[in-house]
Amino acid sequence: MNISIIIIGDEILLGRVTDTNSGLIARTFAADGWQVKRIRTVGDKAADIRQAIEESMAESELTVTTGGLGPTRDDITKGEMLDIFGGELVHDPAVARNIEEIFANRNIKLNDLTRAQAMVPSSCTVIQNRLGTAPIMWFEKDGHALVAMPGVPYETRGMLPQVAQTVHERFGRGGLVLHREFTVTGISESALAERLAAFEDSLAPNFKLAYLPNPGEIVLRLDADYTTAPAEADGFDALCTSLKTLLGANLAAEGKLSPAELLLHALRARRYTVATAESCTGGNIAHLITAIPGCSDTMLGGVVSYSNDVKMQTLGVTRRALEQYGAVSRAVAGQMVEGIRRLTGADCAVATTGIAGPSGGSAEKPIGTVWIAAATPQQTITECFHFGGDRQAVIDRASAQALMLLNGLL
Amino acid sequence: MNISIIIIGDEILLGRVTDTNSGLIARTFAADGWQVKRIRTVGDKAADIRQAIEESMAESELTVTTGGLGPTRDDITKGEMLDIFGGELVHDPAVARNIEEIFANRNIKLNDLTRAQAMVPSSCTVIQNRLGTAPIMWFEKDGHALVAMPGVPYETRGMLPQVAQTVHERFGRGGLVLHREFTVTGISESALAERLAAFEDSLAPNFKLAYLPNPGEIVLRLDADYTTAPAEADGFDALCTSLKTLLGANLAAEGKLSPAELLLHALRARRYTVATAESCTGGNIAHLITAIPGCSDTMLGGVVSYSNDVKMQTLGVTRRALEQYGAVSRAVAGQMVEGIRRLTGADCAVATTGIAGPSGGSAEKPIGTVWIAAATPQQTITECFHFGGDRQAVIDRASAQALMLLNGLL
Repeated sequence: MNISIIIIGDEILLGRVTDTNSGLIARTFAADGWQVKRIRTVGDKAADIRQAIEESMAESELTVTTGGLGPTRDDITKGEMLDIFGGELVHDPAVARNIEEIFANRNIKLNDLTRAQAMVPSSCTVIQNRLGTAPIMWFEKDGHALVAMPGVPYETRGMLPQVAQTVHERFGRGGLVLHREFTVTGISESALAERLAAFEDSLAPNFKLAYLPNPGEIVLRLDADYTTAPAEADGFDALCTSLKTLLGANLAAEGKLSPAELLLHALRARRYTVATAESCTGGNIAHLITAIPGCSDTMLGGVVSYSNDVKMQTLGVTRRALEQYGAVSRAVAGQMVEGIRRLTGADCAVATTGIAGPSGGSAEKPIGTVWIAAATPQQTITECFHFGGDRQAVIDRASAQALMLLNGLL
Repeated sequence: MNISIIIIGDEILLGRVTDTNSGLIARTFAADGWQVKRIRTVGDKAADIRQAIEESMAESELTVTTGGLGPTRDDITKGEMLDIFGGELVHDPAVARNIEEIFANRNIKLNDLTRAQAMVPSSCTVIQNRLGTAPIMWFEKDGHALVAMPGVPYETRGMLPQVAQTVHERFGRGGLVLHREFTVTGISESALAERLAAFEDSLAPNFKLAYLPNPGEIVLRLDADYTTAPAEADGFDALCTSLKTLLGANLAAEGKLSPAELLLHALRARRYTVATAESCTGGNIAHLITAIPGCSDTMLGGVVSYSNDVKMQTLGVTRRALEQYGAVSRAVAGQMVEGIRRLTGADCAVATTGIAGPSGGSAEKPIGTVWIAAATPQQTITECFHFGGDRQAVIDRASAQALMLLNGLL
């Protein structure tokens, strides 16, 4: 069965806010066998919302929309739903209670605009939104369902499991789930494609291999077309096994794991703790590690030594090294990684010092030059990298590379 | 004139990768007066790509696609373009040279798969992609243009100015640019909507006010419909002035500035330096500040004191405070903010200690409890917050709140 997703909001359409809801919804339903057909992003314009809903419901059994349900006037989704699905706005006492509780918990005064969120179309079934004031609305027409969810990302993240459960109860599974991911490291995309050429040649037309290059890794995804019959699916496991054999030592993990997740697994397997010393990556490596739930058994902490004084005072980098070699150097990266191990007592550590740009580059050390050091109890490695791209790209790539450099030592 | 955007790739459609290209393209062309009509996300399926292109070119003078141009077989965009716009694949020597240079700079061996990137449809004009091996292709049909760009975000970021310049030379401005943004702080969305109710009532139908709530701030955007005649546009400046008067002290900045940008401006105005001491936010505050180009004149660095030992060793938090009040407490937040100021010599600092979840909460200190301290040379403030949402939401909100708390003291 097909699902289509509609993201409603001028702020997304105009690029003022990055949409993360569509990806989350797609992943959630793909995991239950739904075929994701199309994502449409439209502005807060009645005609565009209506057209997107009509196209979507024509092609898919399930449509999920997010956005346009706020209390302010620019949010018009509820009115459009009323036009499409009929009924009239009625007061829902359960929604009203939910709104009152949320405001009481937040200690904010409730006003009339927000109180009006309790008015819902009589043509819908409400799924109570525990995390916000906009009710989630379930509509049906000719066997096709539409679920209108709020646009606030954490409300969507939090409420999606319950919405998915409701969909599952109504429709069952969307279809066979036949896709598996493999995290590959230590090889370029084109070299990997060469190695897998014969394997790809041998794939039946209903199977497909996709390459997703991320900083520090490539995620391979083997997909079977959703129309694959259960009998044909029998070959899927064997294909995965062949693929894994071909990947050999470059297979870092089954499933998709980020460099930070790969590192955390490897550290835990050895009961090692870790700490970070960051100059050009500015705290991003620590952020990537600490974004993972439960990391506190392994991650002790870190220092963001942006200025030279902080490098000397907190990490014991010597003035001599800074003057003789400069802050972006093998010597300073090495002193930083040893300094953070000493300071925190961590078994392992990474350190970065480089030039993220857009200014600060020179002929000798152009923008994108980053020295990275990684240390375990047995070994320290210090390496110079030249990353392409803008400031954000250099920070992202240097962070991923540092995580993978330490991972490679474990 | 209208622009439509098409994002091509199973990885985006299935939510494996978050699309940031569409937002960037939308912002870039909206700033040159283009009306963003629709964003479509489709998988690597020939029929879906073709349908999206046809719909898009029917509604918009300009279509920009990203994705599907890589060297691997799952990338089929180039073949689809050939079918739609005609011509045949021909070898482009300039593209071939560009590919060879890129591989030489990266010190990687060039293989046949990548070499084939130099084959381009004879029906297109190539815009050389300095940042990657996939050429950017410009097609035209019946006065409508389509530009096919690569999907790699940093290539899109880097090449977009040149593409926009080419579009500008071909089409001129997309239309009148009539939108302005205002960053508002210190007021809830619904309270702000109440204050602005009469102003919104007075707006002519071709003007619209949108609310974009972000952690720590609300961005207001005043838009005029793109069909507005130049004469009607005269009222726009007066409207902006009225709005600014209504916002009063809650107007933090004209334009959209993130909490980190607001703080950096305020610090610079006073020639203050800053440092961070982070427990539950795990380096994210330092990352938000250091993501801003040129921050090194103001940002000295920080400590991620995830473990209690690191809190004591680097920041001088006392064992007594940790034992008596716990790590998530007013006392520890206060010691952290003083400790980081002492350690780095920074004029100002922020500190966070809290429970981001998903585990670690208690009845007394539930998940989402975060103590935040902010200090200037004159003043220190320590405050307890209770943030809703999951781990990511708590980290994002606590980070924004910490930045705004310090900003409020300046």
